[in-house]
Amino acid sequence: MTKAPTATDLASALIQCPSVTPAEAGVLTLLDDLLSPFGFEVHRPTFSQDGYPDVENMFAKISGGEGPHLAFAGHVDVVPVGEESMWQQPPFCGAVKDGKLYGRGAADMKGGVAAFVAAALRYVETHGAPKGTVSFVLTGDEEGPAVNGTVKLMQWAAERGEKFTDSVLGEPTNPNSMGDMIKVGRRGSQSGTVTISGKQGHVAYPHLANNPVPVLAKIVEHVSAQTLDEGTDFFQPSNLEFISFDVGNPAWNVIPEQASARFNVRFNDLWTAETLGQFVTKHATDCLSGGAFKLSVSLEADGSEAFLTRSDSLIDRFSKAVETVTGKVPELSTGGGTSDARFIKNYCPVIEFGLVGQTMHMVDEHVAVADIEQLAEVYYEFMMQYFER
Amino acid sequence: MTKAPTATDLASALIQCPSVTPAEAGVLTLLDDLLSPFGFEVHRPTFSQDGYPDVENMFAKISGGEGPHLAFAGHVDVVPVGEESMWQQPPFCGAVKDGKLYGRGAADMKGGVAAFVAAALRYVETHGAPKGTVSFVLTGDEEGPAVNGTVKLMQWAAERGEKFTDSVLGEPTNPNSMGDMIKVGRRGSQSGTVTISGKQGHVAYPHLANNPVPVLAKIVEHVSAQTLDEGTDFFQPSNLEFISFDVGNPAWNVIPEQASARFNVRFNDLWTAETLGQFVTKHATDCLSGGAFKLSVSLEADGSEAFLTRSDSLIDRFSKAVETVTGKVPELSTGGGTSDARFIKNYCPVIEFGLVGQTMHMVDEHVAVADIEQLAEVYYEFMMQYFER
Ligand SMILES: [Zn+2]
Ligand SMILES: [Zn+2]
Repeated sequence: MTKAPTATDLASALIQCPSVTPAEAGVLTLLDDLLSPFGFEVHRPTFSQDGYPDVENMFAKISGGEGPHLAFAGHVDVVPVGEESMWQQPPFCGAVKDGKLYGRGAADMKGGVAAFVAAALRYVETHGAPKGTVSFVLTGDEEGPAVNGTVKLMQWAAERGEKFTDSVLGEPTNPNSMGDMIKVGRRGSQSGTVTISGKQGHVAYPHLANNPVPVLAKIVEHVSAQTLDEGTDFFQPSNLEFISFDVGNPAWNVIPEQASARFNVRFNDLWTAETLGQFVTKHATDCLSGGAFKLSVSLEADGSEAFLTRSDSLIDRFSKAVETVTGKVPELSTGGGTSDARFIKNYCPVIEFGLVGQTMHMVDEHVAVADIEQLAEVYYEFMMQYFER
Repeated sequence: MTKAPTATDLASALIQCPSVTPAEAGVLTLLDDLLSPFGFEVHRPTFSQDGYPDVENMFAKISGGEGPHLAFAGHVDVVPVGEESMWQQPPFCGAVKDGKLYGRGAADMKGGVAAFVAAALRYVETHGAPKGTVSFVLTGDEEGPAVNGTVKLMQWAAERGEKFTDSVLGEPTNPNSMGDMIKVGRRGSQSGTVTISGKQGHVAYPHLANNPVPVLAKIVEHVSAQTLDEGTDFFQPSNLEFISFDVGNPAWNVIPEQASARFNVRFNDLWTAETLGQFVTKHATDCLSGGAFKLSVSLEADGSEAFLTRSDSLIDRFSKAVETVTGKVPELSTGGGTSDARFIKNYCPVIEFGLVGQTMHMVDEHVAVADIEQLAEVYYEFMMQYFER
């Protein structure tokens, strides 16, 4: 059997594969070649959907008998490098300099993937296959449209008969330093459009027209001024933002027929897409006087519901591993943007813990070597407790 | 000397020249050939400006000694016909059917031009050249950008030494029937843009961004809700309309940096462009709290000021002519859109009186033959009084 790599060496090797979504760029082959000799069963399903690029994904597992199934989840794709000349270090170099590992994906999240793979290989190397199952759920479509990634990979695994007990997603969760924060759920995200139709006419004869612009402006102001909620024990208050308002009237002397405003809500588990639609419709209706205007509120189809991970045993054991390794009691948070945890939570409890995310998606993305190694140690410590060694 | 045509025959001949802006299409040549034999001095200056089509115009006059200079003003260009197959009558036929003259420009305003030309020729035919001057100020650029038309033609004539005493513009002014309305001024028109700059950011982290959309929405609502004034004896209340609101944010998850709303004001002589800019800026500033947002209010350069014709003698004599011919005392109005009167009022008092405008710019534009002949009679009667015959 080959020797388990360090998390830093593995992260550097992963970074050197330029796997900008949806390119595989050798990154899964590298993991395949690493995992198979340790006894992992490796699958690399490619998923397709009309209008989206095909994406290759990976499901790999090792079992040592009856016991819980722990899935480490993550993505091996990265966002584009942007203006390459702005980088001090070449974006796919994976070089270590002054104790930092540089390159696109170092923080988000090849460093995290390398940490849990290195930790699991060290576990297997030291203790053999766990009493239960350890698997890797790795997608190449997290930074892209996310239609041919985790959502289909979890379904694919479930259809093969995999029963997941718990999952740890290795996205960067720490705002400032290792041990700061575990994410135990995520707010939902729902977008929608408010449209007001009035009556077109000439500005010189406003009494013959019904101008939708000030009516929609009133709606945007009134809806924006509402408090959705005060937050909960685990969630910050829900928030609605109108992110666009568009008429596109090319003329100066014509009152337009129609105006639309687009909004996005980040919301906690007090809300669903349906209740948010009702909320916007109700408060928009408050702003209409009489029947001169037609209101329409539509919701986008790709919204995600809020969720909260309610497994105390998963959260407690992982928090203890973090505290043991970092000396800090991590905050339990549901803040920030969405992640693929929204697809995993339908199959098993999921928490998120990874690196410090400060440079993610930026030029000269990097992460401290000490942090990667500490993260691998946290995952290893958690596995030791999880599989009762 | 040839015989003066009827207004209807002349209008029909003018309609048969398809002079859609900026095409001359033979319409000025037709008038030239008609006027010269009656002793009119005819000029046809073409004006040019970078970025605009060249346009040919006409200034024609006849003088019978010392006396006032009365200028009849109008345009011989017409708007496009639109979907020609929708017309029951070919748009450039100039046919009379059931007592109506059909064709593009019948109402706006070849019918009006034909009426004052026919009236003036009848006057000259009957009484010889007037004691003073009668002139025709005819542009081919009223329905277009209006940069190579009346504005330059009046300046050209003034530079030649023409001193205008009074002007009658023959645009359609009657809402329902002949004798309803004389226009004795026009509201001003001023356009502008309100822009709010905030701070771009991700919707999941609104506390790190400043969303300009609800702030601009508040401004649009607040400014729209203000009363500019209550109107004056001669003017209806000023009115401001926001005719567009644009962000153009392509994303759902990004709070935009900037939002703009465009407005147009139709205003009476209580306001100027400058005081309107101050008004919008003041009420927009009311909606800003703190220094998180940057406000900018800009005005378009092509606005027009309001004006009121204060010559009682012109208004009284023309009203009397209308009453004599139609039996109705016309309302004195300043309503509706702008016209080339805004260029003429800088040289002499100007009033507007013409046909019934109901079908102008529409498919199957037409006007009653009786109305054209009555309009010519009004102009003739006015000339009789004006030149003291
Ligand atoms: Zn990520
Ligand atoms: Zn006109």
